[in-house]
Amino acid sequence: MSRAPGRARPARRLRVVVTAGPTREHLDPVRYLTNESSGKMGFALAARAAARGHAVTLIAGPVALQTPPGVRRIDVVDARELLAALRREFRSADALYMAAAVCDWRPARRLAGKWRAKDEAAERTRVELVRNPDVLATVAGARGARDQRIVVGFALETGDGIRRARRKLEAKGADWIVLNDASALHASKVSVTILGKDGSLVKIPRRPKEAVADRLLDLLERVPGQ
Amino acid sequence: MSRAPGRARPARRLRVVVTAGPTREHLDPVRYLTNESSGKMGFALAARAAARGHAVTLIAGPVALQTPPGVRRIDVVDARELLAALRREFRSADALYMAAAVCDWRPARRLAGKWRAKDEAAERTRVELVRNPDVLATVAGARGARDQRIVVGFALETGDGIRRARRKLEAKGADWIVLNDASALHASKVSVTILGKDGSLVKIPRRPKEAVADRLLDLLERVPGQ
Repeated sequence: MSRAPGRARPARRLRVVVTAGPTREHLDPVRYLTNESSGKMGFALAARAAARGHAVTLIAGPVALQTPPGVRRIDVVDARELLAALRREFRSADALYMAAAVCDWRPARRLAGKWRAKDEAAERTRVELVRNPDVLATVAGARGARDQRIVVGFALETGDGIRRARRKLEAKGADWIVLNDASALHASKVSVTILGKDGSLVKIPRRPKEAVADRLLDLLERVPGQ
Repeated sequence: MSRAPGRARPARRLRVVVTAGPTREHLDPVRYLTNESSGKMGFALAARAAARGHAVTLIAGPVALQTPPGVRRIDVVDARELLAALRREFRSADALYMAAAVCDWRPARRLAGKWRAKDEAAERTRVELVRNPDVLATVAGARGARDQRIVVGFALETGDGIRRARRKLEAKGADWIVLNDASALHASKVSVTILGKDGSLVKIPRRPKEAVADRLLDLLERVPGQ
């Protein structure tokens, strides 16, 4: 990959936290509820941010991807572990890219042994779920009024995506939301829309995830200087 | 990998079907229920069977593994797809190794758009599940009295494994059940117990999955000659 020589040592070396991949919410030792996510967008962000010379921490759910060179990686499994790691890491960071596909629900109980339907002959059963902590809102919303850290959220939507993403941006208190549609899941090229809390809307047409990552990292220039 | 020259061209080239990996049971385009399974045991079986000169078809759920040389691979996602592929392939096969971790339940409905709790502020919800077809019992039990095809099932159990595996062997109508415990999930070495419908019980102590695969393929010698 070619890169401008000036990019390897940026004027400011920022501390960037990226989350990537799905979380898994276990019902028992073998069964779990999860989200479709290859982790590629988050890993591309981490790789390109490190290539730009930033100090990158990648908090990754279970994915089959190699850690990019120069990136510090923390592996997590479920939403609560991800939130705990993120709270710790974001404290001293300048920017967060919340690319992980965090499960919003988890089984109400995680059994130590294998789950079985109460009635072994039953054809139907149900699983009780409880809401997971809202990782994006928790981290974005905990910033003080003079806090200069930036938070970029991601939304994967079906249907009326822009309206939902705009609402998400406001509800969560993020600075930007990157909107994907479900066709992004298995594609090497993606189209995204970047919505800003200033009302801005930038569409990036179908491009490789690495190129989209580079566009998203340009948002780091909005981190106020020290 | 070294192999005895006599093994590459076995006296009889058998048609072996192996299933591997998890299935995914989608609730909506992004969320699904699944089982923990790397697919490594099934892929090791397929690789070693092909190395012995057998004609191998591998029916694989979503895993991040390369197809072993000389193996025909069919990719599936959910239990019903796996069963459909297996029915087709087992018709002309001599043996089946049912190493896939097939989900026994799936969401009662798969939504076209993203699933949302009816009450967006709710802290609890539930998912209705329906029982998946029992793939092992369906295929093993559909064999006629003079059918010479062999069926090897797998059981991952927590707790009183041998009693449950014995019951599974009988209930499903398989010829052998290979019992794993949950510690096998992330290990490169595994201990298994092979239970036969003749009442036999063979314990294989902690060995690499490839070595266990070789032991399991020795069961092919029990396929009656033509």
